Amino acid sequence: MSTDDTTDASSTDAESKCGASSTDAGSDDSTSKCGASTDSSSSSSGCGGSDSTTDEKVGATVDDFDAAPGRLVAVGLGPGQPEGMTQRARGALLEAEHIVGYTTYVDLLPEEVTESAEELYDTPMCGEVSRTEEAIDRALAGNDVAIIGSGDPNVYALAGLALEILESKGGTASAVDFEVVPGVPAAQSCGARLGAPLVNDTVSVSLSDHLTPMETIESRLHAVAGEGFTIAIYNPWSRKRRENFQRCCEILLEHREPDTPVGIVHGAGREDEAVEIVELGDLEDLGETDLIDMTTTILVGNEDTYVWDDRMVTPRGYESKYDY
Amino acid sequence: MSTDDTTDASSTDAESKCGASSTDAGSDDSTSKCGASTDSSSSSSGCGGSDSTTDEKVGATVDDFDAAPGRLVAVGLGPGQPEGMTQRARGALLEAEHIVGYTTYVDLLPEEVTESAEELYDTPMCGEVSRTEEAIDRALAGNDVAIIGSGDPNVYALAGLALEILESKGGTASAVDFEVVPGVPAAQSCGARLGAPLVNDTVSVSLSDHLTPMETIESRLHAVAGEGFTIAIYNPWSRKRRENFQRCCEILLEHREPDTPVGIVHGAGREDEAVEIVELGDLEDLGETDLIDMTTTILVGNEDTYVWDDRMVTPRGYESKYDY
Repeated sequence: MSTDDTTDASSTDAESKCGASSTDAGSDDSTSKCGASTDSSSSSSGCGGSDSTTDEKVGATVDDFDAAPGRLVAVGLGPGQPEGMTQRARGALLEAEHIVGYTTYVDLLPEEVTESAEELYDTPMCGEVSRTEEAIDRALAGNDVAIIGSGDPNVYALAGLALEILESKGGTASAVDFEVVPGVPAAQSCGARLGAPLVNDTVSVSLSDHLTPMETIESRLHAVAGEGFTIAIYNPWSRKRRENFQRCCEILLEHREPDTPVGIVHGAGREDEAVEIVELGDLEDLGETDLIDMTTTILVGNEDTYVWDDRMVTPRGYESKYDY
Repeated sequence: MSTDDTTDASSTDAESKCGASSTDAGSDDSTSKCGASTDSSSSSSGCGGSDSTTDEKVGATVDDFDAAPGRLVAVGLGPGQPEGMTQRARGALLEAEHIVGYTTYVDLLPEEVTESAEELYDTPMCGEVSRTEEAIDRALAGNDVAIIGSGDPNVYALAGLALEILESKGGTASAVDFEVVPGVPAAQSCGARLGAPLVNDTVSVSLSDHLTPMETIESRLHAVAGEGFTIAIYNPWSRKRRENFQRCCEILLEHREPDTPVGIVHGAGREDEAVEIVELGDLEDLGETDLIDMTTTILVGNEDTYVWDDRMVTPRGYESKYDY
């Protein structure tokens, strides 16, 4: 599972409102203060300030909103299922008037949450930029808004984007009482599934070169693979950049033995979850299988990592200090 | 907040049972299958296999237990307060017969959890090794045991230690149905408090040289500071190793500008929580203040990180792709 559903969003977002659905989830929408828009007659469906048809171009600024701002909370859901959510996340969603998110995650919300919200706004394949802007516009228009994502809002996710867009609109974080509710990141969800692969110094690297040049990614992989970090690889594979995955495997093999344990978790906590522990030398060939896609997180062991009883274990060094 | 309460445990653990308290929390303890021990007459107080008075030396092995093994679940509590716990963690604790942990975290458990447990075993300053062994012995003796810690069991915490000790006792993870319930790590709890400091490639490094040589820590800091990772520093300071913190600050300044934003969160989610955003050049002097101790996590920005409206923001690079 990745927290980043739309890393390659630029090529898939043909339209500004590609399939977005705004559901009136509350029993009484008369108190719903519909979003932004320079046109004050915005309806409850498709409300929000992004009246431009140019995708990923921010429309409204704070000056377009008359109302006192509401609130904006970025909520991390963890692995995705309700039981992986913290009680604080649940509370934030129950308090929110509007909930904005990727359709997959909105669909996973518990009924008590979707029933208590006045509006749900979800987009299936839309870019996170337009969805985040929608959430911000709704907050600037006076609504209490939660924007959701799997994992943690700080791990390749929307906390930063929300602040960046808010700033570009002339808003401030304090004006909308911006808050981040953390969640369990994919690396830890997958680590738990595998045993104890990540108990020492660990790094997370995304293989998506959509926002980071591949040379930078390669340089980072070299630096950490040579230093004994365990490595959590996010966004490992997509059809458009299979060569990034190949390069990653090559670089890791320059620094680590082919029998280094590698844990692969596909769709953690979902119906199609699949977990395998393989050797680094066999990793590259798996890139072409269903096991590795954008919902997969890969955990690469260090020189001390071993496999025991179907678990992946990275010792911390206790055995050198204690007699057991 | 660190997930590692006893990194320097070796020097503080003078006794094997230093203040451990085993509380009969249930209303009826007749079903409590008291732990291990080579002596089958173990009482409910101080039960468990560690009958050796030599601290940190594992006692009982699987052969010392007649009962069918129970269960062992390592549960991450997140920041520590009940609202930071996932619903899955809450469920695992409600199901456990015995709960084992550091006193500070046991004290933070919600009443419904402590009331439903048959026994609570907590140690104030004891080493995590003896506490973890106690949990394992109780599981091997047939009890359903949860061992708890703040943050995530995979982040400088007890998931790996539990598997290592279990193996040393001749047990297997599958025999005790070993499971890890992930939690929100300190880096993400603190990141949320600061805004969006960690939305790109990130590394976590512990400055404790109790289990990792300082040369290794220094080499890792050099490698990642030169590569634009944001850096979460765990266990930043203790009186016995203030020079590690000084070295860390010096190394970071070799690679990053003195005005690089650094977020400091002390005691995240606790009563004595303190949050500050400072500049890297000022970090070293803060090592001698109350702001930085073993309950502090420090998040070091990369070259793109900036401070805006009291938030720390590391952009992901959207601004280079999108017009907003």
